[in-house]
Amino acid sequence: MLVIGERINGTRKKIAAAIESRDAAHITGEAKRQVAAGAGCLDVNAGTVGEKEVADMCWLVETVRTVTDVPLCIDSPNPEALRAGLKGAGNDPVVNSITGEQHRLDDILPLVSEFNTRVVCLLMDDSGLLSGVDERVELAREIAGKLKAEGIGNNRIYFDPTVKPVSTEPDQGASGLSVVRTIMSELPEAHTTCGLSNISFGLPARGALNAAYLAQMIAAGLDSVITDPLNMAVMTAMRAGLALMGRDQMCMGYIQASRDGVLK
Amino acid sequence: MLVIGERINGTRKKIAAAIESRDAAHITGEAKRQVAAGAGCLDVNAGTVGEKEVADMCWLVETVRTVTDVPLCIDSPNPEALRAGLKGAGNDPVVNSITGEQHRLDDILPLVSEFNTRVVCLLMDDSGLLSGVDERVELAREIAGKLKAEGIGNNRIYFDPTVKPVSTEPDQGASGLSVVRTIMSELPEAHTTCGLSNISFGLPARGALNAAYLAQMIAAGLDSVITDPLNMAVMTAMRAGLALMGRDQMCMGYIQASRDGVLK
Repeated sequence: MLVIGERINGTRKKIAAAIESRDAAHITGEAKRQVAAGAGCLDVNAGTVGEKEVADMCWLVETVRTVTDVPLCIDSPNPEALRAGLKGAGNDPVVNSITGEQHRLDDILPLVSEFNTRVVCLLMDDSGLLSGVDERVELAREIAGKLKAEGIGNNRIYFDPTVKPVSTEPDQGASGLSVVRTIMSELPEAHTTCGLSNISFGLPARGALNAAYLAQMIAAGLDSVITDPLNMAVMTAMRAGLALMGRDQMCMGYIQASRDGVLK
Repeated sequence: MLVIGERINGTRKKIAAAIESRDAAHITGEAKRQVAAGAGCLDVNAGTVGEKEVADMCWLVETVRTVTDVPLCIDSPNPEALRAGLKGAGNDPVVNSITGEQHRLDDILPLVSEFNTRVVCLLMDDSGLLSGVDERVELAREIAGKLKAEGIGNNRIYFDPTVKPVSTEPDQGASGLSVVRTIMSELPEAHTTCGLSNISFGLPARGALNAAYLAQMIAAGLDSVITDPLNMAVMTAMRAGLALMGRDQMCMGYIQASRDGVLK
């Protein structure tokens, strides 16, 4: 299970301030804590725009790389910022993200090819988000075909079902699980991931919803998640979910987490 | 979602002592707390044998009924104790349990018919527990057929996949989900339930495993659970799981639970 740590994101106030003041210690602290908590990849998002975003992304990537070698997930809609991040990102980076939108594919696929990256693919198209199961699975097949034509195999794609909040669309929880289950059974070697917190938007006590949804997603076959690895409820549900699904050899990961006192 | 509260069970030391000393206040306290926490049915198990069990069951049922009208789940392998419990149980009781074992069907089905009860059906047969998905689903179909011949419809049956611990059989978590998913889609009107704690036997931090498994089971369609309703982690996962699966109208149950401060 690949945990992509989401905390280094310039849309968060403290991270924005750290970027603005070039407070490297704050950023490296966030990087180290996430890796220690179980992140196998760190998302890096400057949260700014234009030339400033390019410079901020360069600094963020360079700063994070001073303290960890885990792969980075370079997160921007801006191809120039992605390029700048990928140049400094080290081994086996991930691009976050492409969608079914043609302009995004045109802009970003060349970078995925040039830097030989993995890529997060949000299952939305030019019409905005898609709600149905079949239309999202069909889009995943289409995008996998386009990427294959560029020499990018399924094993480099992380499809995100891109769920909407159950507070306004009650079927989104179940349909997200169906999208993941279908992709994991029908697209050989493809990965699935999930920006976990969307599902609970607009509701109270969101941590418990995110935790339960991750356990459900793991039962559907999810093999990556984009989340805050410092959230103990979510990480506990993940570890429990993996043990329950026979994806934790002899439950040793769960037993060790219990010994380490990191279960909630 | 029907929560069958499991706390009034004479195999627990405090309950055994309360039964022995006819401490009604202890038993009624357990009953009231479970109902307040969300139990819609209370399991009653004397944990004794022979004539003593019959007398203990009578007293337990009578005692619980002084403080609540929720249906009771009369829990014993002993037909005489079941009969004694059912006589005093009031409306819409549940019998816990039948299995595929012929002698148990022979002994207990007449009581289910006579008292017009619902019944928990453990998916095990004369060979002991069954591990595979197909063999458990096939057994469910067989038992549903036998009960139908006695005039007992699927809507009165709560099939329990009767999982074994993942600590020794790592596929039991996933196969239990498959059993529930298949029964809920293929046996019209049948219910499923789960004695939740079996899955985590032999592991540390069992509450988190039980909670995550309940969330996963709810995604598979489970519509009843046999558990301790005073366990906040489990009840939180249940409420979250129902909201996530669109089984909590407008998420109002979850929102109310948050307001009531009962979410962990």
